[in-house]
Amino acid sequence: MSIAIIDPGKDVSDWVAALHAHDSALKVEVWPEIAEPEKVEFALCWNHPEGVLPQFPNLKCISSLGAGINHLLNDPSRPPQVPLVRLVDNALKQSMAEYVMAGVLEHFRRFKDYRQLQSRTQWKELPIPDISTLGVGIMGCGEIGRYVAQKLFNFGFSVCGWSRTRKGREKFPVYVGNGELETFLSRTDFLVCLLPLTPETENILNRMRFDQLPAGAYLINVGRGSHLVEADLLSALDCGQLSGALLDVFRQEPLPEQHPFWGHSKIAMTPHIASVTNPDSAAEQIVANYHRALSGEPLLNLVDVECGY
Amino acid sequence: MSIAIIDPGKDVSDWVAALHAHDSALKVEVWPEIAEPEKVEFALCWNHPEGVLPQFPNLKCISSLGAGINHLLNDPSRPPQVPLVRLVDNALKQSMAEYVMAGVLEHFRRFKDYRQLQSRTQWKELPIPDISTLGVGIMGCGEIGRYVAQKLFNFGFSVCGWSRTRKGREKFPVYVGNGELETFLSRTDFLVCLLPLTPETENILNRMRFDQLPAGAYLINVGRGSHLVEADLLSALDCGQLSGALLDVFRQEPLPEQHPFWGHSKIAMTPHIASVTNPDSAAEQIVANYHRALSGEPLLNLVDVECGY
Repeated sequence: MSIAIIDPGKDVSDWVAALHAHDSALKVEVWPEIAEPEKVEFALCWNHPEGVLPQFPNLKCISSLGAGINHLLNDPSRPPQVPLVRLVDNALKQSMAEYVMAGVLEHFRRFKDYRQLQSRTQWKELPIPDISTLGVGIMGCGEIGRYVAQKLFNFGFSVCGWSRTRKGREKFPVYVGNGELETFLSRTDFLVCLLPLTPETENILNRMRFDQLPAGAYLINVGRGSHLVEADLLSALDCGQLSGALLDVFRQEPLPEQHPFWGHSKIAMTPHIASVTNPDSAAEQIVANYHRALSGEPLLNLVDVECGY
Repeated sequence: MSIAIIDPGKDVSDWVAALHAHDSALKVEVWPEIAEPEKVEFALCWNHPEGVLPQFPNLKCISSLGAGINHLLNDPSRPPQVPLVRLVDNALKQSMAEYVMAGVLEHFRRFKDYRQLQSRTQWKELPIPDISTLGVGIMGCGEIGRYVAQKLFNFGFSVCGWSRTRKGREKFPVYVGNGELETFLSRTDFLVCLLPLTPETENILNRMRFDQLPAGAYLINVGRGSHLVEADLLSALDCGQLSGALLDVFRQEPLPEQHPFWGHSKIAMTPHIASVTNPDSAAEQIVANYHRALSGEPLLNLVDVECGY
């Protein structure tokens, strides 16, 4: 009985240590160094190579090493009968809230503009609106989206959410489904994408949707690269419909060197670091799911493969 | 009976409009266009010229146009018998919390470092600590300091405060007096100065105090320029004891063009805009104090001139 970590090219020693800190009896192996594949019952994956999962005939559970699971859903070789779980932990939600809050505040309080004034030795006050008049629209009201929305709402922003289906009641308005998307966008000065990637949400950040935002809106994409139609972002920035964008995710990662996003003055980029899973805080949940998988108890954060999240 | 606004060189038409919106019967005059100085009973001042206040023999109250009052305390010509009030309004506190939160998050989440990586077309993840391990130390636990501390605490930072005297109980630890200053500093990765400027707090941001912070700490000065010994900041940055600074206030404002802060790679500057009084939200308080001054009722936000705040 063992856990296999499949995260090619990454040093996963901190994961191994964190898992052992929670259960010193665990046998943890790091792919491709797997002594006996038939003993692997639990696979922890991030960007695993296609075809690797069928090498483990006795898998009882496949866990993503993050909140995203499309790398698993998109693998046609994934054994469909093995349940899929993902990580939902507080550190992950908090890290995302920090990133989004930093991005919204940096743009709202014009820190980039002030850096430029400083570089030109210019002492000049720039006007800003009152925070309560600023609409922050969170697309995706899952665990992470709701947490981020709540943090920004508590801080003073006028937050609203958009979601595929009606979930629980929130302190902020939540618009639901395609029918309410335009209304949601019309009151959104900061558009934050925290959607899961599904056939319905792919390319949802496109020119038609950008044009439904107030002029000068700002985009923060922390969902997945394929939510965004890249050429549409460039055209919306060039004509001023969008005032800028902060992007953490890309269709191809690492972003190719010749990509126009790198040098664009209105695009700020980070290398998929908005919300990085913290092994220490996530290990407890992984170890719990490992024991649940072995004993047949219900799994935590089970993925509904039909819905795609 | 009239109110005089004394704010040389600034367009104060929004103040006049906001005061009239709260009391259309008010007579509001803008210095130096004062028809009958003896009818002025209430003066609203920001950076007023020395010697102007004695021109109004029937003043019943002098109000700062902001939270700071040292421009008034430092004027030897100010009639000492006239009570002094300052503005304490929610928009002012909120604006300060936004600025401090933006500054802390920008540094903590390494947005400046990522901009540099982007300019070099480099895809590289930078390590960050867990937010709960980061000490944010707020110097000054008055109305504004407590509000800012509370917002950062609620967001997830490990906040502590430092104050001259013990005030009410807070959710976060508050260190008191010079005896506890070193302990406070030793657990402060982000030092935020929100102190009033008094003889005791002048030059409090000095090399000895910087050396009591953990190595690599970050300074945010949103108090007053004279809290900071400028040469000590430069030496602490140069030797790496401080990793950077965000400054909104300066000994001389506007900061002279040849000042070394402008071009320093570890200093980010803004032109005293962290917390700008919003006429719409502050007018109610001013109008209330005007009527209280006339009727002899207790004034709101009265300054204790002995304490200096």
